[in-house]
Amino acid sequence: MSPRFPHPHRAAGLPDRVRVHEVGPRDGLQAEAGVVPVGVKAEFCRRLVGAGVTSLEVTSFVSPRWVPQLADAEELMEQLRSDGTLTAPNLRTVVLTPNRRGYDRALAAGATEIAVFVSATQTFARRNLNSTVEGALAAAAPVVAEARSAGLPVRGYVSMCFGDPWEGPVAVADVARVTGQLIEMGATTISLGDTIGVATPGHVAGVLAAVLDVGARAEQLAVHFHDTYGQALANVLAALQHGITEIDSSAGGLGRCPYARGATGNLATEDLVWMLHGLGINTGIDLDVLVDTSMWMGGQLGHPPASATATAINNSRRTTTDA
Amino acid sequence: MSPRFPHPHRAAGLPDRVRVHEVGPRDGLQAEAGVVPVGVKAEFCRRLVGAGVTSLEVTSFVSPRWVPQLADAEELMEQLRSDGTLTAPNLRTVVLTPNRRGYDRALAAGATEIAVFVSATQTFARRNLNSTVEGALAAAAPVVAEARSAGLPVRGYVSMCFGDPWEGPVAVADVARVTGQLIEMGATTISLGDTIGVATPGHVAGVLAAVLDVGARAEQLAVHFHDTYGQALANVLAALQHGITEIDSSAGGLGRCPYARGATGNLATEDLVWMLHGLGINTGIDLDVLVDTSMWMGGQLGHPPASATATAINNSRRTTTDA
Repeated sequence: MSPRFPHPHRAAGLPDRVRVHEVGPRDGLQAEAGVVPVGVKAEFCRRLVGAGVTSLEVTSFVSPRWVPQLADAEELMEQLRSDGTLTAPNLRTVVLTPNRRGYDRALAAGATEIAVFVSATQTFARRNLNSTVEGALAAAAPVVAEARSAGLPVRGYVSMCFGDPWEGPVAVADVARVTGQLIEMGATTISLGDTIGVATPGHVAGVLAAVLDVGARAEQLAVHFHDTYGQALANVLAALQHGITEIDSSAGGLGRCPYARGATGNLATEDLVWMLHGLGINTGIDLDVLVDTSMWMGGQLGHPPASATATAINNSRRTTTDA
Repeated sequence: MSPRFPHPHRAAGLPDRVRVHEVGPRDGLQAEAGVVPVGVKAEFCRRLVGAGVTSLEVTSFVSPRWVPQLADAEELMEQLRSDGTLTAPNLRTVVLTPNRRGYDRALAAGATEIAVFVSATQTFARRNLNSTVEGALAAAAPVVAEARSAGLPVRGYVSMCFGDPWEGPVAVADVARVTGQLIEMGATTISLGDTIGVATPGHVAGVLAAVLDVGARAEQLAVHFHDTYGQALANVLAALQHGITEIDSSAGGLGRCPYARGATGNLATEDLVWMLHGLGINTGIDLDVLVDTSMWMGGQLGHPPASATATAINNSRRTTTDA
């Protein structure tokens, strides 16, 4: 079925091109119970780039005590450098640097863009970052400044932009304030995260309006939705209608937030790409090769992809072959 | 988590109220491998009404040779009449009548609204209805006329409005033509079905524009999306933005189309209600009671609901209880 669908039908007011920021190797694999061998991670990254991914979050330079799954960050970067992946044309790679120590490691490993992480809510800042909203911003500031003066772009993640499992709904003004401060300190992209997946499209519109109102430009913003309540793709549509052109997703729907109760995985890249291509929006991604990649990774992990599109395309191939 | 989420945020231009047309007992249960006892079906309907469902597709008066799962249509209607469900205030009940024989049975069983079924594509008309598009319309016409003259509203289903597994993408003009003919013969609601789940929001906008262009009014239309590629809820958002106020869905995501390869279930009512309530749109449905209903039905069927929202709400209860 895949050669004929999705059939492109453009919708008024949407962008021609969207940058899909693939977070599977970092956000996805850090949530796996087991540790994936570094060679498999490198192969996953190569296959994603081979599928046309142009924006890739590779790993996190976090303490191995916190996230043992990503303890091989240096080794992974070295493999991706020696095989030429990191210097592939038109490929943006990002690594997460939760603190100054992580930043130094990332720089030594040849990172060309870093990401920092703050929370829109006090409770999540305390529980996940062992800090406060202000404390996390203050800790991020020198890392952002250092990276910017070294010529590196900086992605700023804001988590809990819509709801917090302890505090409930989050005030849009809080999200706007944190976003404004990250931009002021030099972050080049802000990714607005719905960490527990409770957002709906009107809420997305409200948050984006508030963030744009404090001076952020649409081209500085990305959205990062979790599909806990099945809302991620409808929320993406709302974001596209508000001018957002960078969307985070995870191949095969890999990834859970281990700190948020009941939160299920990231929006699956395949489901996102199906919608974008159906809307006539260019992503540069070959959906069939991406499905191959997620099926392959599912085989490595021992569980199938959590993506409706990957499952349906894979089933239709099997049916076609059997027929 | 459920008392605080979804937090309502209205979006510009959307309706205040949406009618959720629940198709689980008919479209859902006809796809189950086993036959559900009639008493369980009646209890399912009662629980759905108890959850606030106001539009319910109860069963199909189809030949038991075709769909043995629904051979108990008369008995189910009798149970729902004797317990007062069929005469509950503000409840609309619909039964499918695939032909004249089915219509006579439905009328004898006390049906107050019927549904007929046609296809937008020739191949699906041949394979599923053993007819042609024109033949299916011609067969429906006297049933619709008879029902209308008996004072019954008629729901007209158009299947394969977006893609056909054999023919590929479907011309919007074909959908508009079939819809126009159903309205002309007296159908009071037309439900536009994406039987194989391939639609994306721009395509939804295109089909709705074409259908409205041939004289259908938005309040005569419903949409029926399948979630095969994870697109159903984004497509609903597009439909809402085009003035549609009746949406088909299935509690717990029950239902598959047995005639379309690889097609997975209907949009889950819980996921739909989460979005609608998040958008500040009134449905009359109590999401918690609906999740109870789907969990109960899952227990009867021996498999859990295929709804992200039902799963997440159920998990959060368990976590809360454990904590």
